[in-house]
Amino acid sequence: MNTWGNKIKLSIFGESHGEAIGIVIDGLEAGIKLNLENINKFIERRKAGKSSFTTSRKEKDEYKILSGYKDGYTTGTSLCVIFENTNTISKDYENLKDLLRPNHADYPARIKFKGFNDIRGGGHFSGRITLPLTFAGAIAIDILEEKGIKIFSHIKRILDIKDKSFLELKEIDLEKFEDLKENSLPFIENNLENKTKELLEKIKLSGNSVGGEIECACFNLPVGLGSPFFDSLESKISHLAFSVPAIKGISFGIGFDFVNILGSEANDLYYLDNNEIKTKTNNNGGILGGLSTGMPLVFSVVVKPTSSISLEQKTINIKEMKEDILKINGRHDACIVPRVLPVIEAVMALAILDEII
Amino acid sequence: MNTWGNKIKLSIFGESHGEAIGIVIDGLEAGIKLNLENINKFIERRKAGKSSFTTSRKEKDEYKILSGYKDGYTTGTSLCVIFENTNTISKDYENLKDLLRPNHADYPARIKFKGFNDIRGGGHFSGRITLPLTFAGAIAIDILEEKGIKIFSHIKRILDIKDKSFLELKEIDLEKFEDLKENSLPFIENNLENKTKELLEKIKLSGNSVGGEIECACFNLPVGLGSPFFDSLESKISHLAFSVPAIKGISFGIGFDFVNILGSEANDLYYLDNNEIKTKTNNNGGILGGLSTGMPLVFSVVVKPTSSISLEQKTINIKEMKEDILKINGRHDACIVPRVLPVIEAVMALAILDEII
Amino acid sequence: MNTWGNKIKLSIFGESHGEAIGIVIDGLEAGIKLNLENINKFIERRKAGKSSFTTSRKEKDEYKILSGYKDGYTTGTSLCVIFENTNTISKDYENLKDLLRPNHADYPARIKFKGFNDIRGGGHFSGRITLPLTFAGAIAIDILEEKGIKIFSHIKRILDIKDKSFLELKEIDLEKFEDLKENSLPFIENNLENKTKELLEKIKLSGNSVGGEIECACFNLPVGLGSPFFDSLESKISHLAFSVPAIKGISFGIGFDFVNILGSEANDLYYLDNNEIKTKTNNNGGILGGLSTGMPLVFSVVVKPTSSISLEQKTINIKEMKEDILKINGRHDACIVPRVLPVIEAVMALAILDEII
Amino acid sequence: MNTWGNKIKLSIFGESHGEAIGIVIDGLEAGIKLNLENINKFIERRKAGKSSFTTSRKEKDEYKILSGYKDGYTTGTSLCVIFENTNTISKDYENLKDLLRPNHADYPARIKFKGFNDIRGGGHFSGRITLPLTFAGAIAIDILEEKGIKIFSHIKRILDIKDKSFLELKEIDLEKFEDLKENSLPFIENNLENKTKELLEKIKLSGNSVGGEIECACFNLPVGLGSPFFDSLESKISHLAFSVPAIKGISFGIGFDFVNILGSEANDLYYLDNNEIKTKTNNNGGILGGLSTGMPLVFSVVVKPTSSISLEQKTINIKEMKEDILKINGRHDACIVPRVLPVIEAVMALAILDEII
Repeated sequence: MNTWGNKIKLSIFGESHGEAIGIVIDGLEAGIKLNLENINKFIERRKAGKSSFTTSRKEKDEYKILSGYKDGYTTGTSLCVIFENTNTISKDYENLKDLLRPNHADYPARIKFKGFNDIRGGGHFSGRITLPLTFAGAIAIDILEEKGIKIFSHIKRILDIKDKSFLELKEIDLEKFEDLKENSLPFIENNLENKTKELLEKIKLSGNSVGGEIECACFNLPVGLGSPFFDSLESKISHLAFSVPAIKGISFGIGFDFVNILGSEANDLYYLDNNEIKTKTNNNGGILGGLSTGMPLVFSVVVKPTSSISLEQKTINIKEMKEDILKINGRHDACIVPRVLPVIEAVMALAILDEII
Repeated sequence: MNTWGNKIKLSIFGESHGEAIGIVIDGLEAGIKLNLENINKFIERRKAGKSSFTTSRKEKDEYKILSGYKDGYTTGTSLCVIFENTNTISKDYENLKDLLRPNHADYPARIKFKGFNDIRGGGHFSGRITLPLTFAGAIAIDILEEKGIKIFSHIKRILDIKDKSFLELKEIDLEKFEDLKENSLPFIENNLENKTKELLEKIKLSGNSVGGEIECACFNLPVGLGSPFFDSLESKISHLAFSVPAIKGISFGIGFDFVNILGSEANDLYYLDNNEIKTKTNNNGGILGGLSTGMPLVFSVVVKPTSSISLEQKTINIKEMKEDILKINGRHDACIVPRVLPVIEAVMALAILDEII
Repeated sequence: MNTWGNKIKLSIFGESHGEAIGIVIDGLEAGIKLNLENINKFIERRKAGKSSFTTSRKEKDEYKILSGYKDGYTTGTSLCVIFENTNTISKDYENLKDLLRPNHADYPARIKFKGFNDIRGGGHFSGRITLPLTFAGAIAIDILEEKGIKIFSHIKRILDIKDKSFLELKEIDLEKFEDLKENSLPFIENNLENKTKELLEKIKLSGNSVGGEIECACFNLPVGLGSPFFDSLESKISHLAFSVPAIKGISFGIGFDFVNILGSEANDLYYLDNNEIKTKTNNNGGILGGLSTGMPLVFSVVVKPTSSISLEQKTINIKEMKEDILKINGRHDACIVPRVLPVIEAVMALAILDEII
Repeated sequence: MNTWGNKIKLSIFGESHGEAIGIVIDGLEAGIKLNLENINKFIERRKAGKSSFTTSRKEKDEYKILSGYKDGYTTGTSLCVIFENTNTISKDYENLKDLLRPNHADYPARIKFKGFNDIRGGGHFSGRITLPLTFAGAIAIDILEEKGIKIFSHIKRILDIKDKSFLELKEIDLEKFEDLKENSLPFIENNLENKTKELLEKIKLSGNSVGGEIECACFNLPVGLGSPFFDSLESKISHLAFSVPAIKGISFGIGFDFVNILGSEANDLYYLDNNEIKTKTNNNGGILGGLSTGMPLVFSVVVKPTSSISLEQKTINIKEMKEDILKINGRHDACIVPRVLPVIEAVMALAILDEII
């Protein structure tokens, strides 16, 4: 089902080359002022065509709010926003349609939807479908910021380029983190941007692609958000994160590094900081028993390399049931990590909003 | 909310030292034969007190099916099963109750539940709550086996001990995997069991603990299960997996290793194997676009080290708001990984059942 | 929440004078052929301005299918359809906005939405919001007709004018019932139409309004649809029926007449009709224990008189908190019953579809 | 599905002659004091064997709270309560099992559950399943009373015996309504009890049965509870009300009488009563646009005559597919209306609680 959430309900729809894509956001109370400038700025961050290593194809990300909004404020009924698919010149999908593109959903989608799915531009599996999610996330971020809650993300790793983790920082300077939002290749460490840009341009030239790891953090959360068991904060965040195409793993706090240490090292010890309860380390990433601890909520996701590459690949023609060669032309992102960053922030914000509303 | 699922609905309840724990399973059709012997054998696998390195405390895992079952078959109405908490001699929780145990849910739970939660034995945050989930999983596994679908898991890693991955195997021999279920320290490679046993005994003796990584695989799935976007197979599995206490990360296929390779290496290329469509590699772990590809569905989770250790730890007395020393007596698991294995298989089975029913 | 359904999920949005109203229908499988001609004909039935006694205001009921549909067939992803609100010339709502209109939602809506709701044309409380529901119902009816299931409705009563009930008919002639769909004042008995038309014209002239009772029946249902308890067929149908503005009561079978008879008269006795199990009477309206019995499913709803009348009414100016006189100008329906008929058929169809899919 | 609710989730389970029946109530916050005395008194009201005209069979209504409750307060996790089925001496159901009892669920249940359902004592279709719902309702009533919200019900009609409606009362005296709870045949008018008792005893002697109409009212509700459209207050209440076996109709305010009057009479006119906004009439039963108006919320339900009567009835032997005679022995209620009263109050309370929590 394409519906998510308990207190807010998101219902997403659309295909990449259909009439429009969009989302219905149900559960926003009346009288929330929407800061369209902030929203525009936020969704701009996932736009293609801004860097040398992303696709040069320009999507139009203009939206229409159809309902639930009047004179700058939410009306309290479902807010529906749509993005029309204007720039969808009829490419010749005919010759591609029987060749299964590796790492795309072509094969299982064809079986599930019995051949009736819209394959143009990836249809409902297109990364473009994250655009309405990002829009919803922008609203959530705005509401959370009103409560003093802040969300940031950065590139944690691409191939050999490794950034610091939020968890390693001695001092948390939220002001400084604002820079991360201004940069299309945001790192905590200063000297990684140019190196990465060069790497990505090289990969793009070679017709190949690369993935990466994104770390996202949420600061100033109240203690005790979430639920034990089925609706643990980890459950809710991961559910939403894996909706995003190309995400193949998620970990909270130090995640898979828990396998390398003993309990005595893993345990986050409590101490009093000006009469506030904190932990010295934050290996658990701000969640214990599915509930927020008040420490920064930190998780990482891995994005797999862009599936579409320019290199020739062996595959199968499913109609003729014989092996064939696939050559994908057209413009592709060498690395979608920079564009996924705001989507992951949206995931964090929506999961938190569904708890805090 | 403690309710999960679309086509089946699970509603879990109970506290470790309350009257009983249990689960309501809604959505099983009438006339399913329950193989109680298989169920008993399965839930036996998560029992404590079987190995030198697990806790010597013996839980009674006897259950009563209260509804939805008659004369060996499901009746088609909600099946409720309970496990009474008989062996809960009143330990003195009074002196512990204000000392926040690190890595447990004590602190956020106290805030969320305003001090009214049952803290005895961890209350609703106890690992014991996975027992009813495991019971539900046993039913799911039985139903799936009827359809030829098989689920296996093994220990992938504990500290330096590393097993092979299901993904690396040239030949899949499901018969041989049955051994994994007979062993409390199941590895794919033969020579790892004794070494691990020694390691765990040493850690137990030292009063410390350790976590580990578990890999779980599901074979013979039909193509096209799952949904794009919000109810991707990854979303559903991860949602349920993070309900299990101590799980801090999940990855599908090669997961976080996607960060190390290029698209040309990451892409799983299709080929024909006796007129069946397969991929040469299975980096995506049998899921593309949220849908099953027909290749083995493979995921890994990381289990953090057991939070309760015998060593003294600094912490806070929350009532007096001052720092204090915590010394947890009593019997604990040095490593819960062996007991978590069947719980993770249950997670896989329930997520798949909710799609296939 | 504005989301309904288990196997299909409907998410409705929009305000009468906003950009657009619409619905997202999630859960339709791929490859369903949509018969747009049938859909158009069906939604045409709830259109205003067709009779002397309905409002002369002409809504444009043109729709755009934004997603989930391609080349005549569903694609298997969420289908979103919108109706733009083109004919919304700025009436002067300013002078009305503080006067509470009796029997409308003005007062509780103002409190709930803190004054931020869109009051133009009734906003989200407008009967116009039933248009997308009717569209969804048209699809459901088409799918059900493919399975041989037929739905009909008629006016059962307006003031003293009383029609026969489906339950009283000796012979069921589905062919003949087709006429009910062609008529804007459909009765089972032949001689009631003109009389009713006269009555309604008289009421319209006097500036007053009237309600009525609608009976709806579904034929050729399989036995055993529905669930005991929370998701009884009655629960599902009534939930949806009371979403429709102006509906204030629903009854199944003989409904409130059960109060007049003894058990020996109320019991529907089984007999064999050509080896088929039927009941002689159908007092229960085709539902027992929440499940369909195979007999025609029959329910009735009562529609209250149109709240907007031309007569002067005493009311309150909520801003000034003093009593005042309300005079509603503009064009109103003297009786909305004829326009509600297809909406109620849509309710029946969607509730059944959610069970049968 | 046997799960209901948005903010609270109810999951009901059990069969009349199985091990136990019960309910899981998810969503109660921690620290609610449960008044067991009130609860006991409330569920006592639906008990059989108290009057000459109800069945003389004595059910044991003793319960065990398994979870979510400690030392008098809710713990904040799911509360599960069970009622063991102790008094279920094996009646000979064998000879009844192929004879379809009229107006019971036997026939459609047999088809739906393929013969695997537990038919003893009605199984999951038994009125006994309303016992856990009544328990949940008792908790809800207690929580609402803390907020000053009061719920009452009375018999509105049985055959020719007609009581006044809450809607007709000039003065509302909540103190006096408390008497309605003390009486097993509660009427607003004083002189109806004995007459009714005589009527019911006569019907019982004749081996027949009778139904009735119940009116339920909720006082002191805040304005603006509920939602427009799918989750209108009417939708939520009716959904739950039709879960109760034998309910075949529901109406709000004057309900089906809206068909008899003009808009000018139907409209509830606003006036100021000590600066509070009220309506002179309450034809809409306290709900407009799906939202509470602050006026008393009033609805009526019709209960069909008890299906089991002692008189011989023609029916079908479904195994042999031939007509047969059914003679139901044993003890039955001549009229279940008095026992349904608290169940309907529970319905009101749970629907309101789900909005107000």
